[in-house]
Amino acid sequence: MFSVKALDTRSRELIEKKINLKTKPLGALGELETLAKQLVTIFSQGIEPEQLSAFRPQISKPTLTVFAGDHGIAAKGVSIAPSEVTAQMVANFASGGAAINVFSKQLGWQLEIVDCGILSEPDQALGVTSQRLGSVTRSFDECEALTQAQEAQGFEFAKKLVHKQYQQGCNTFAFGEMGIGNTSAASAIFSALSGLSAEYTVGLGTGVSNEVVDKKVELINTALNLHRDKLNDPHAILRCLGGFEICQMVGAMLAVAELQQVIIIDGFIATAAALLAIRIEPNSQSYMVFAHCSSEQAHLQMLNSINAKPLLDLGLRLGEGTGAALSLPLLQSALAFYNDMNSFDDANVTKVV
Amino acid sequence: MFSVKALDTRSRELIEKKINLKTKPLGALGELETLAKQLVTIFSQGIEPEQLSAFRPQISKPTLTVFAGDHGIAAKGVSIAPSEVTAQMVANFASGGAAINVFSKQLGWQLEIVDCGILSEPDQALGVTSQRLGSVTRSFDECEALTQAQEAQGFEFAKKLVHKQYQQGCNTFAFGEMGIGNTSAASAIFSALSGLSAEYTVGLGTGVSNEVVDKKVELINTALNLHRDKLNDPHAILRCLGGFEICQMVGAMLAVAELQQVIIIDGFIATAAALLAIRIEPNSQSYMVFAHCSSEQAHLQMLNSINAKPLLDLGLRLGEGTGAALSLPLLQSALAFYNDMNSFDDANVTKVV
Repeated sequence: MFSVKALDTRSRELIEKKINLKTKPLGALGELETLAKQLVTIFSQGIEPEQLSAFRPQISKPTLTVFAGDHGIAAKGVSIAPSEVTAQMVANFASGGAAINVFSKQLGWQLEIVDCGILSEPDQALGVTSQRLGSVTRSFDECEALTQAQEAQGFEFAKKLVHKQYQQGCNTFAFGEMGIGNTSAASAIFSALSGLSAEYTVGLGTGVSNEVVDKKVELINTALNLHRDKLNDPHAILRCLGGFEICQMVGAMLAVAELQQVIIIDGFIATAAALLAIRIEPNSQSYMVFAHCSSEQAHLQMLNSINAKPLLDLGLRLGEGTGAALSLPLLQSALAFYNDMNSFDDANVTKVV
Repeated sequence: MFSVKALDTRSRELIEKKINLKTKPLGALGELETLAKQLVTIFSQGIEPEQLSAFRPQISKPTLTVFAGDHGIAAKGVSIAPSEVTAQMVANFASGGAAINVFSKQLGWQLEIVDCGILSEPDQALGVTSQRLGSVTRSFDECEALTQAQEAQGFEFAKKLVHKQYQQGCNTFAFGEMGIGNTSAASAIFSALSGLSAEYTVGLGTGVSNEVVDKKVELINTALNLHRDKLNDPHAILRCLGGFEICQMVGAMLAVAELQQVIIIDGFIATAAALLAIRIEPNSQSYMVFAHCSSEQAHLQMLNSINAKPLLDLGLRLGEGTGAALSLPLLQSALAFYNDMNSFDDANVTKVV
């Protein structure tokens, strides 16, 4: 369904040269230089190397989509809150009072809330985009969480949504999530992808007790055992262990990569989705910026497993796309220095190397 | 000359309670919550606890001052560039083409460039604020870098400048620096304060070779030995090993702390100045936000020595205040969530704990 092209890196040397001639010691802007190289490479796809010097890449209409979905597994007591909180928080997003609303407003994100399938359908007046695949997934320790038809429908929904946002002028996409129980799904996915048993992939979620951690580990190990013959394919892993919101995140990431635009990856659950997207289309990773390392213990392992270096490390564990939202000014700074800083020649400064 | 009051923390519990009732799991915004508590405590000085609920703290006219100065030690070949580059970069700041200009414009900083004493006096037309203590410090391996009169004059200059900026409405101050040779001065200061020999406090600066590192270590150890009987007092450490720009940074930090406003601490050299300010007036630390950990190897040790946790870790090693500049959106986000996020009651969300 998705076909992601490798980045054309013919301009890479020109981009590096431009950065290296800026009035600063070589490499002195650290990770911001790495980020600038990646962003400029992505945004200059389709531009011939000889036209690059006149090209001023800019982030345009950055859009953050929060995908919400409920999880069958939540009924088994793996979270700090009951599933009703998913719908309550969706209403909170719709009314503008959640963390992601505040950060979106402050930092200039367009925000879209998508119901991928939560227990109680939100009132139409709330303005939530409806892309429901059901009202709750099936409990993954008993059977596959999603059907093949739900997965296909989720990908279709996500692709359509991304294309709509792209046509509105967005070139930088972030994806957040809300779904009581979804850290369990993300841990299970990472276990399936990495071969690590649940003891290593389960953490405190948004703040559960040690007892609940033990319960999560047990349920996930049960599920890994139940589905063990199917877990060698990313689509099957997604269906067996994922969620409606995770499925649409994977689809949305692949759709952005297919369009060769920038994807900002948020925390633990978004990174689980990113790992699946990369397994499905390995080229998609080069379009991804990893926003932050959360305090969920296995997040760093997830990032390390694909050699991803996150921009921020603030001990966040909220979800909603908050970490991705907070990283936007750094992307803007990376492009600002690329576009606007003087070269040694411009400034008559003795070149230091 | 400076008298820094302890923060009045009577409102601390009220501030924490307000944060804990926001629609998010307890502590889920990680370091941003710690930052919000600190900023709101500082900005609410003088406000009675019973008036706190109506108080909406905001960052006002954030101002970044770049202090520039030349170092006698630079003539001994401890840097990647000759001292002339200090003046060239000051001209670059004045013409708007350096990294700090780009980030200031993007992020909303007022920028002021101060000549604290560089080899060639900048042309008046450049609009650089003149607070010269000389044209270059004396080489610290031979005698004290600054005289007592220069230190006193530097503090006076800095205090006046900070008071001017404060009167213009600034409540958030950052300080950057430019001065070929000043990582050597900062390493020497940290050695004197910590008792660590120069082998542990000297790094690559903005990018010197191993040979130059050895030279820096030798010169600093010579200086530490030469001045060893005086290094038990922060003022003497500043005079023996500091620089004109470092002296004015220390004075400016103390002046902001005296005014009970927010100080954002940049990288290695700014942190050396902060360590001196804290040694002079220990209360000043509670007004400081540590923006980032640079790639200069001893910077992390400096931060650890005062239990400071930096917001960013991007491998920067440019100076100019760039790390401090980049941290501003995080401070704004911390206040935004404090001011604008819904509580559980506002949003009818089941409280999760």
